[in-house]
Amino acid sequence: MRILDISRVLNERSATYPLNPTYERTILRDVPDAPSSLSRIILGTHTGTHVDAPRHVQKDGAGIDHVPLERLVGSAVVLDLTDVADTITARDLEKRRVPKGHIVLIQTKNSAADPGVFDERFVACDESAAQFLANLPVLAVGIDGPSIKKFQVRDRTHHLLLERGIPVIEGLDLSAVPVDHYTFVCLPLVLAGADGAPARAILLRE
Amino acid sequence: MRILDISRVLNERSATYPLNPTYERTILRDVPDAPSSLSRIILGTHTGTHVDAPRHVQKDGAGIDHVPLERLVGSAVVLDLTDVADTITARDLEKRRVPKGHIVLIQTKNSAADPGVFDERFVACDESAAQFLANLPVLAVGIDGPSIKKFQVRDRTHHLLLERGIPVIEGLDLSAVPVDHYTFVCLPLVLAGADGAPARAILLRE
Repeated sequence: MRILDISRVLNERSATYPLNPTYERTILRDVPDAPSSLSRIILGTHTGTHVDAPRHVQKDGAGIDHVPLERLVGSAVVLDLTDVADTITARDLEKRRVPKGHIVLIQTKNSAADPGVFDERFVACDESAAQFLANLPVLAVGIDGPSIKKFQVRDRTHHLLLERGIPVIEGLDLSAVPVDHYTFVCLPLVLAGADGAPARAILLRE
Repeated sequence: MRILDISRVLNERSATYPLNPTYERTILRDVPDAPSSLSRIILGTHTGTHVDAPRHVQKDGAGIDHVPLERLVGSAVVLDLTDVADTITARDLEKRRVPKGHIVLIQTKNSAADPGVFDERFVACDESAAQFLANLPVLAVGIDGPSIKKFQVRDRTHHLLLERGIPVIEGLDLSAVPVDHYTFVCLPLVLAGADGAPARAILLRE
């Protein structure tokens, strides 16, 4: 079995979405002066590779600790949308073969971008794309940009998915991933009641 | 496929090993006053369910970002050591059938303890047990206590495993897990150069 790590490394140079905490690590004690090394980390629930829970947009929505893992572990398909310059619409998705009941991973030109720079022109979905995926329905949606929604657009892209219980995985690194079917495993930290959580995500292939 | 979550929930009441940062979450903005909710979290690299990297005890050891996922994803066996009152020795392990090349998960009476209380009498391994597992060898070792080593004992339990590249998973919740063979998936956050990282761990069964 081959494991493809599609998570982004967290380090002090990692770009973060505006208003979100940047990652910091402080070494509290260190070998050989101490018997073991130990660090404190600070980050946001939407920093780096992470999962949005319904609580991100709904006051009474499920926290990340109540997102069923059955939505984050299962059959996944990678869709090549690297030809989209700006915004992914339902029309772009209709042209691809998007299977029902799968985890859909959207590969865009974001994966080729410098992870140390926040570029507000990142490719993302509009409401029509979110509605298309929610109607299929899909199990979960992942994308390789900092958000599934275009920067500074105030629309219902997140709501259309999260209100249907469809978790959104953001900040994936799909740069080295061939378009194919995989088993996807994404495990967010279990943060009680939180709007989202940092996660590690992998693809498995026989 | 059935998914068993063997991670501990992180909340403000979670007990933490002395000197390690306790988990804190601060809500930075919240719906409906803001368009979306967002939090900052603070925790330690060894807080809650986590993985120790070789860097935890070796100055030049691999950081958690260089621990191969092939050691944290694979065939696992749960060993019932709930009858051990205090310290697990090589003798205790010799009595069980411990297979080579597997991920070994040690279930003790720690799993029945209150996760809100740090009890310094937690059950852990001594050097003989670590040496036994390193010699087999195993792929990785997981335990349901706050450390694989007894509290305040300064010995080479961690070194015997980590110096051989065997990652140690601590803070698992094995309370509801039948003794059996599983596929184990443990995904720590990818923290550049860190001595360890918080993780989510699951067991899969057909």
